[in-house]
Amino acid sequence: MTYCVALLLDKGMVFASDSRTNAGVDQVSTFKKMHVIVQPGERLITILSSGNLSITQSAINLLEHHSQEKDSNKTIYSAASMFEIADLVGHALREVRRRDGPYLQQNNIDPGATFLVGGQIRGEPQRLFQIYAEGNYIEASPETPYFQIGESKYGKPVIDRVIRRDSELLEAAKCVLVSFDSTMRSNISVGLPIDLLMYDNNSLNAGFQRRIDDSDPYFKMIHNEWGEGLRRVFAQIPNPYWNQP
Amino acid sequence: MTYCVALLLDKGMVFASDSRTNAGVDQVSTFKKMHVIVQPGERLITILSSGNLSITQSAINLLEHHSQEKDSNKTIYSAASMFEIADLVGHALREVRRRDGPYLQQNNIDPGATFLVGGQIRGEPQRLFQIYAEGNYIEASPETPYFQIGESKYGKPVIDRVIRRDSELLEAAKCVLVSFDSTMRSNISVGLPIDLLMYDNNSLNAGFQRRIDDSDPYFKMIHNEWGEGLRRVFAQIPNPYWNQP
Repeated sequence: MTYCVALLLDKGMVFASDSRTNAGVDQVSTFKKMHVIVQPGERLITILSSGNLSITQSAINLLEHHSQEKDSNKTIYSAASMFEIADLVGHALREVRRRDGPYLQQNNIDPGATFLVGGQIRGEPQRLFQIYAEGNYIEASPETPYFQIGESKYGKPVIDRVIRRDSELLEAAKCVLVSFDSTMRSNISVGLPIDLLMYDNNSLNAGFQRRIDDSDPYFKMIHNEWGEGLRRVFAQIPNPYWNQP
Repeated sequence: MTYCVALLLDKGMVFASDSRTNAGVDQVSTFKKMHVIVQPGERLITILSSGNLSITQSAINLLEHHSQEKDSNKTIYSAASMFEIADLVGHALREVRRRDGPYLQQNNIDPGATFLVGGQIRGEPQRLFQIYAEGNYIEASPETPYFQIGESKYGKPVIDRVIRRDSELLEAAKCVLVSFDSTMRSNISVGLPIDLLMYDNNSLNAGFQRRIDDSDPYFKMIHNEWGEGLRRVFAQIPNPYWNQP
């Protein structure tokens, strides 16, 4: 499986993806699920992917391939809005599923794939979209400043409790890492390294990118402190005091 | 949806189930998903259910119905082991699915249902089983002292971090309620009241049962303290200190 999360905050955006893939349980590998497109001063686009790896890789490759065709008039490098980018990703996904889907389904292999697509294009505010397996999409709104794909449930409670639209980027990155730690603690299909990208609103540059593996001292610290902190909070809550028989 | 959890600990067992059911989003109701069978000094059996409500209710009704038939030789009231109880529940589930499944599937209604079945019968240790939608089942072991069914992921991290085989029953009940609180915070398909049952190992009685609704002061306290505690722990962890550009 996979876990990806993207936050759309006043001060910028935070993207993170794990890198574990598996075909069955006996073929586990590491693949980057974050694809970043930068034209300094012009655009920063980050695409996170979940689902069938051959489908998501082919869709990303198609997006890049189309952008190099001579007669292509609208590509991820030339689109004037994030809405158009979301549309291009949805189209690429549909194209790949048309091509490969029937063959996969002959062997009952799920061709499903979803994407988070966010970033900023000059002249527009930052925007964040979730592309569904069918190629349709929704956009994050002020009331819902984040999207998750993949194994999203383990790490959702902490985001729900901590993240607000006006959270600082570094604090949001910390929350995202706690969310990943909770997910990886309870689900072995999500694994290190984590690819993290922090983007400052209106900067139109590549932002701060970091690959976090098991030697990362900050992530190790979070892993220990969060676990100990949870157990401490738990211990401080009194046991039930209902009248027992 | 649903959330149910059952813990098999050295000192006894803890069972809990939420009570929200929904057919679509416009038909939300409250149904008890915990069914308790007590013969003092003889047996305590608790069945928690998740999935299609008509299927789970019919399966429970069949179990009770069969036990009243004159020629029934093995029922939930006469079976000599929890293994036989698990088998009876699996058979009842298969019987209902044979009867109703094809009609539901004509309208693309999922006939899936799963059960947690635990308790103790005189002469046996406590045992806990999970019955799958197909009627087959697995038993909890010392390495895996708990099962969850329904919306299990939100509330799994806290159980994974806190519960050990030798945990006290009241502490385990507290953990279960924290787990429910996290689940209900992030998923509206799980809702109060919670039915809770604590069973003391070898007591062979009804244990301590409580229905926890939104007026329960202990649960309200947990809800507030846990949320505040998490935010406090989160605030105490320093922000990332990577060298940023």
